[in-house]
Order: sequence, then structure tokens, then C-alpha cells
Amino acid sequence: MEELVLEKAIQDIYPDDFAWCYGCGRLNKDGHHLRTGWQGDKTVTIFTPESKHSGGIPGFIYGGLIASLIDCHGSGSAALALHRKNGNEIGDGSIPPRFVTATLNVEFLKPTPQDVPLKAIGTVEEIHPKRWKVHTEMFANDILCARGEVVLVVMPSTFRKKK
Amino acid sequence: MEELVLEKAIQDIYPDDFAWCYGCGRLNKDGHHLRTGWQGDKTVTIFTPESKHSGGIPGFIYGGLIASLIDCHGSGSAALALHRKNGNEIGDGSIPPRFVTATLNVEFLKPTPQDVPLKAIGTVEEIHPKRWKVHTEMFANDILCARGEVVLVVMPSTFRKKK
Repeated sequence: MEELVLEKAIQDIYPDDFAWCYGCGRLNKDGHHLRTGWQGDKTVTIFTPESKHSGGIPGFIYGGLIASLIDCHGSGSAALALHRKNGNEIGDGSIPPRFVTATLNVEFLKPTPQDVPLKAIGTVEEIHPKRWKVHTEMFANDILCARGEVVLVVMPSTFRKKK
Repeated sequence: MEELVLEKAIQDIYPDDFAWCYGCGRLNKDGHHLRTGWQGDKTVTIFTPESKHSGGIPGFIYGGLIASLIDCHGSGSAALALHRKNGNEIGDGSIPPRFVTATLNVEFLKPTPQDVPLKAIGTVEEIHPKRWKVHTEMFANDILCARGEVVLVVMPSTFRKKK
């Protein structure tokens, strides 16, 4: 799998008020700063965990961190897809939609090794204009280690008004 | 819901080599130190997130952290239950079994407020001697905010030999 650096990520253009997520908010200085962009018609998030992110098995990654990656990759992917459906792209000045997670399902297929970049690749499915599903495969060293399915809903306007 | 301090938690007696999990390892100084114990025939994990653990919605908790809580609560609950099935209890000097997560399903029912303790309450189901399921309800301020279902398998001996 070729190395990929995402030039444009949907999280780069979330409104400031909604850019504080511990997983993917660019303004949360303590967070993971996950970034999700297009690669053809797939969505991609790449993340290299820190050594502290060990799991129950020595030398392998914490499952909760993998779930976190799949969660934020899901909301970023849905935002990318709806943004594009609305006729917009990152960089055209438009504000992207924000999603919240309804359900998060993760299947751990193999222990995920530490000290390598993790790559989540997503396929986005619209199941309703306000309800989207993201199918994710997560690779470490080109090996499929986890699979995820996330259902997300467009963030209600009541949340958007809150600050 | 009454305040509860867990005197005995299964994570307190995991073998040192398997006590480094970012979520629940007592030896991981950067981790969450989740602790899971019995409350009657239910299992309980209580955790108060830090202010940095914000989600995409201002004032609410990151879903990936909730997934992490439900994951470690699941493996702790399964370990408690199999330990008891084997005739052992925390404090009798016996070494508890360790589990790894096979699948993690989380349903986010309501946004989870920040700055309050989260309480996960689990019901453990044996579906096979080496495969257990934990049904979890997660409360914040006595309000059910998330529901989880985790399938766990006894950690293979090949992992146990690894160091």
C-alpha cells in the first residue's frame, strides 16, 4: 500500500465551535487530530498511535483506540460524502455538515501491532438524507486488522445552536 | 443512584505483564485506569472523563471514550465472571483469566454530558466456555446515555507467552 499524505481533510474546515473533538478536533490540543480525506471514491484516515496506547496484549494496540479511529473516520467520511452530494468540496469556502454517531460496531480480526501507521479506508452509504452508514476496513502494515460499521446522523440544529 | 466506590477490581490483580492496557491497565501511567468490580450480580465500572475528552458537540463526551469504557468494562466483566465460575474471587491469591475483544457494539442513545462520573453496569452471559458476551448500560447522572454489547474470547495462550 503506497504511503499517503492527506492534503485536504474535512476536519480542517469544521467550524471552530465544532472542532474540539478529542478524536478529530483540530483545536483540541490534547486530542488525536485524526484527519479524513478522499482517495478516489474511498475515504481515508491515517493515524500512528503513541507507545502509551497499548492494549491488554503486550505489543499491540488498545481496542478502544481502534474504535475511536473508526468512529471519527466514520463521522469524517459521512461529512465528506454529504458535502460532496451538496455540490461542495474542501477548499471552496463552504461549511461542511457535521454528524453524530448513532451506532458504532467494530470487529477485531487480528491483534493490531504497535509502532506502525494505521490506515482506515471507508465506503460511504446513504441510507437516508440525514442518516448515513460508513463501512471501514482498518489496516496495519497492509494487514486487515479490524472492520467497522458506523451509522451517523446529521447533527441536529439544536446542538448547532449550543455553545 | 447511590455513590459507589469499588473496593475490589479485577484489574487490580491482572498479572503485571498484562496490566498495561491504555484503558484499564494499572501500570500504564498515561491510561484511564478503569476498574471493574461486582455489585451484586452486576458488574460496574465508574469513570470521570477529563475536560479534554470533549466530543464533536461542545459540552458532551467523545464517543470514542464511551466505546473505550464499554470495551474495558466488557473485558473486566468477563474476567470477573469466569474467575468466579472457576471458584475464585478477587483477593484469594488466584490469577484471573484475561480476555480479548472480538466485537464491540455501541449504541449512542443521548449526548453524554461532560464533568460527571459515567457508570457502566454490565450483565455477563456465557455463550461458550471461551466466548462471553457482556451487555452494558452506561449512565451519566442516572440517565441512560449509551448501551453496549461486547463479545470477548479468553486470551489465547500464545499471547500469554509473549512478552
